[in-house]
Amino acid sequence: MKSRRLLLWSAVLAICAGTASANEELRKLSQDPNQWVMPSGNYAATRYSELNQITKDNVNNLRPVWSFSTGVLRGHEGGPLVVGDVMYVHTPFPNNVFALDLNNNGRVLWKYEPRQDPSVIPAMCCDTVNRGVAYGDGKIFLHQADNALVALDARTGKEIWKAVVDDAKKGATGTGAPLVVKDKVLVGVSGGEFGVQSHLDAYDIKDGKLAWRAYSMGPDDQILFDANTTSMGKPVGKDSSLKTWQGDQWKIGGGGTWGWISYDPQLNLIYYGSGNPSTWNPTQRPGDNKWSMTIFARNPDTGVAKWVYQMTPHDQWDYDGINEMILADIPVKGQQTKALVHFDRNGFAYTLNRETGELLVAEKFDPKVNWATHVDMSTGRPQVVAEYSPQANGEDHNTQQICPAALGSKDQQPAAYSPQTHIFYVPTNHVCMDYEPFKVTYSAGQPYVGATVNMYPPKGDNDLGNFIAWDAGSGKIVWSDPEPFSVWSGALATAGGVVFYGTLEGYLKAVDMQTGKELYRYKTPSGIIGNVNTYVHNGKQYIAVLSGVGGWAGIGLAAGLTKDTYGLGAVGAYKALANYTELGGVLTVFALP
Amino acid sequence: MKSRRLLLWSAVLAICAGTASANEELRKLSQDPNQWVMPSGNYAATRYSELNQITKDNVNNLRPVWSFSTGVLRGHEGGPLVVGDVMYVHTPFPNNVFALDLNNNGRVLWKYEPRQDPSVIPAMCCDTVNRGVAYGDGKIFLHQADNALVALDARTGKEIWKAVVDDAKKGATGTGAPLVVKDKVLVGVSGGEFGVQSHLDAYDIKDGKLAWRAYSMGPDDQILFDANTTSMGKPVGKDSSLKTWQGDQWKIGGGGTWGWISYDPQLNLIYYGSGNPSTWNPTQRPGDNKWSMTIFARNPDTGVAKWVYQMTPHDQWDYDGINEMILADIPVKGQQTKALVHFDRNGFAYTLNRETGELLVAEKFDPKVNWATHVDMSTGRPQVVAEYSPQANGEDHNTQQICPAALGSKDQQPAAYSPQTHIFYVPTNHVCMDYEPFKVTYSAGQPYVGATVNMYPPKGDNDLGNFIAWDAGSGKIVWSDPEPFSVWSGALATAGGVVFYGTLEGYLKAVDMQTGKELYRYKTPSGIIGNVNTYVHNGKQYIAVLSGVGGWAGIGLAAGLTKDTYGLGAVGAYKALANYTELGGVLTVFALP
Repeated sequence: MKSRRLLLWSAVLAICAGTASANEELRKLSQDPNQWVMPSGNYAATRYSELNQITKDNVNNLRPVWSFSTGVLRGHEGGPLVVGDVMYVHTPFPNNVFALDLNNNGRVLWKYEPRQDPSVIPAMCCDTVNRGVAYGDGKIFLHQADNALVALDARTGKEIWKAVVDDAKKGATGTGAPLVVKDKVLVGVSGGEFGVQSHLDAYDIKDGKLAWRAYSMGPDDQILFDANTTSMGKPVGKDSSLKTWQGDQWKIGGGGTWGWISYDPQLNLIYYGSGNPSTWNPTQRPGDNKWSMTIFARNPDTGVAKWVYQMTPHDQWDYDGINEMILADIPVKGQQTKALVHFDRNGFAYTLNRETGELLVAEKFDPKVNWATHVDMSTGRPQVVAEYSPQANGEDHNTQQICPAALGSKDQQPAAYSPQTHIFYVPTNHVCMDYEPFKVTYSAGQPYVGATVNMYPPKGDNDLGNFIAWDAGSGKIVWSDPEPFSVWSGALATAGGVVFYGTLEGYLKAVDMQTGKELYRYKTPSGIIGNVNTYVHNGKQYIAVLSGVGGWAGIGLAAGLTKDTYGLGAVGAYKALANYTELGGVLTVFALP
Repeated sequence: MKSRRLLLWSAVLAICAGTASANEELRKLSQDPNQWVMPSGNYAATRYSELNQITKDNVNNLRPVWSFSTGVLRGHEGGPLVVGDVMYVHTPFPNNVFALDLNNNGRVLWKYEPRQDPSVIPAMCCDTVNRGVAYGDGKIFLHQADNALVALDARTGKEIWKAVVDDAKKGATGTGAPLVVKDKVLVGVSGGEFGVQSHLDAYDIKDGKLAWRAYSMGPDDQILFDANTTSMGKPVGKDSSLKTWQGDQWKIGGGGTWGWISYDPQLNLIYYGSGNPSTWNPTQRPGDNKWSMTIFARNPDTGVAKWVYQMTPHDQWDYDGINEMILADIPVKGQQTKALVHFDRNGFAYTLNRETGELLVAEKFDPKVNWATHVDMSTGRPQVVAEYSPQANGEDHNTQQICPAALGSKDQQPAAYSPQTHIFYVPTNHVCMDYEPFKVTYSAGQPYVGATVNMYPPKGDNDLGNFIAWDAGSGKIVWSDPEPFSVWSGALATAGGVVFYGTLEGYLKAVDMQTGKELYRYKTPSGIIGNVNTYVHNGKQYIAVLSGVGGWAGIGLAAGLTKDTYGLGAVGAYKALANYTELGGVLTVFALP
């Protein structure tokens, strides 16, 4: 077995040996359905696998075949990578990484244990999560909570280099999964609740030197905009961000970049979103607050933005725009389109031309969304309903029954897309809120939230979530499976006609891609907020997922909070979770008999 | 479903309503193979189930059907109870208890969270373990680390009464599982490493009042010996304990009572063992140190001892005598016998007449045991080998290659017995040690160990354990399955011809009762030091086990210790465990398709 593993390793290393071709080789690996070499499965972030051994006819025979406790409690977001015969598993803070031997039921080949100052924990707004590691050039890249970006030797776990992405003392933390593109490692930062001027960074894959840094807001040379940068098909012009902030407020403007990153090698563009402007209290920061709440398309070599689109100008609800950008070539209103599809926290699903940034579709993917009537397709601006506008109602006024809640109609839990069906499979939240903004003063490293929030299901509903199928060409729900709790787990679509996702109670579920009919469920040890993946080992298809309840929806359980408005308002809505599950990080691997 | 559960509850409560008949009704429940109502499955502690749906022919189809994380790390000893449609699961410190609904994949019916001062943790010598709860009279009994014995309403989890068994400030802690016998709750105490004068207590099942207390050493009125108390068939006489201690040393004499308790309703006798005399340094405490290292047979109504048998007089190796006493009617040397069978830490398996205390068989169950050549069957005394005697070699001398190590050829992990085969199935350790005693001064609440220990496999061996089948009538190994690590999990024997046990790497294994051939294995999330049980729900047989590595063997992982001699010497031998597993408490429930 050892020699077989060495051989496989040699093969992997051989194709990764040349730096210049790192991207090409990683791209090839990502196209091998037997492996799962990047957080979203592939650069297009489709979370689709061509594997088809597990089908809708046999998935009811699925069963766990081995499992592995990570030794860490609290919320386990993200999912494992599979490169050759090795699985890489990460944990929330303290951000341990394990290399597990697939030839031996997950025997530990190595373990990396960062030494981090636990004082970073209070700066992690929504649990101590981490969304996973990236692979490239024979290295595993980990973005630690304390902002260290470390490159580990994939064979030994030894640290090769370390970069520092930002300063935890200012409230910046690492939670996102890096992405390797060509000779660079891309990584963002969390800190929208602490007034961090957030940025996406590119580091040299060989030595960890900063290649470029693109801020979400600020002067053009900081946000890496040039004369060709467009929005809605038109050049944004000079100082497009500065003009939308009062005074120097952009310096503490938030716009976190903690979500998923995708990449189109043909267009040579990377895509990601920015989060809420700081503070949450909208009355304190007049203007559109660009480019918070924005989709960015940037050149990965230079960082320069080709196009941008701000979904929620002057945010009043914490509708971060960081959710994944899925790249799919689909018919949109009858025309085959190089599309980018994005399910935003604000409850609208956006379909754009990913080459030009042109907005093609913007429709609600939860019918209860009420903060805006629609998106004006000529300006791209949502038409805000005054009744649900904390800005309109003013400071210290409790605006009620806003849908969705701050954690959105969907949060970080990534959707999947099947090129078989041209349909998107979307884990969603079904939660509304009361929102009361209050004045807050900025102090570096202190929470800069300025709003009290309370969440609950939409009036007349009991369920807090749905798992839906979405037609992004027409902007319509195809089918919808209600779930008692928000679906905080990333989905997986497969060529076997089966879609997988996890639930907050802890079920791994398999549903029929065509109808949403449940075909299989298994109660894993804890609530699932991790992402389902699949791979082949020794000719057999496996399904793998991390359970470990937590994240924003599970913050009450994860951090032991009890008051309804704690956890940025999320504790109350999810109190009943304690009737189903407890903390605990466990990888469960499934297969057919 | 709810009404069905209520009905079942009514049935259970109805038969438990009369206090006087508590024992009779619990005994009946314990004879129902569909339930698992006491820690060892039944009063005889056979860990045998008459269930036979899972057989050696179909066990390879076994698979996990649901799981439940306890939310607690460190070592999970003991196992769940099943009473009606409810499973009761306990955790190590902080000793949470869950009632899980078997009709709903383990939905949480209630959770009990004791508030304990964590300062008790350093007084827990061998991880923060707890060996489980007991059921009786509609109550769940939990012995907390801090010595509280609480009675919880089995339906609601509400505390009904609380007793205090001992004082944590003196180093006494609660780790053992209570046993309900008639109208009393029996419970012991840990503290042999802290000079606690240990005792077994009986509390009134209705109100928690102390009915009797029997110390392991001291004056006759403290150890509850009378003129009829015998050893090796003869009255022990007056002051049988006091005479074997220098001065007042018995007051800090140890003799922990943290092991399993069994009961023979016909003979009206309970059986349990006492642990090491304090301090570990034998040169400091001359004499036989009675009644440490002793099997006790007592009347459960009065506590008075009928007979005793000291296995290891003047212990020099920490060979606690607390392992389970299995009550089996078996042929011993051709004669059908009411036997008590006990696999001691000292490496000898003892078969006694459980009515009289007569010693019938005493043979090594690991051929590498070398500290004694044999047990003299007329005196019952082991014939100690001077070369392996720390007493003979003196203080500050490092006596090497003693087999077994302090944690014994077997520790608390209980064996199983099948009345089908008349064979015992025994999880064992295969570990030796170096032992260097040094002078230590007693100070209440401080460790009172006085020895440095280092453990490793026997010379020339790599494996640290075996799972063996044992003929207690002849004192011979029937078959032996080597295991890379000590088998620290309790076994289960079933009428299906299958024996189950867990391994420190985390495997649940099923082997053929006749041959020991492995028939099934599944890698649970963490190393297993819990005990396997079985039950029927809705007509289907299930197997349940807690994983969660730790305990003495896993103390290095559990407490993050690195130096070989830490953890009372156990850290070094088990270092490689980190290559297989991590902490994490998870219940996994298995069934056939």
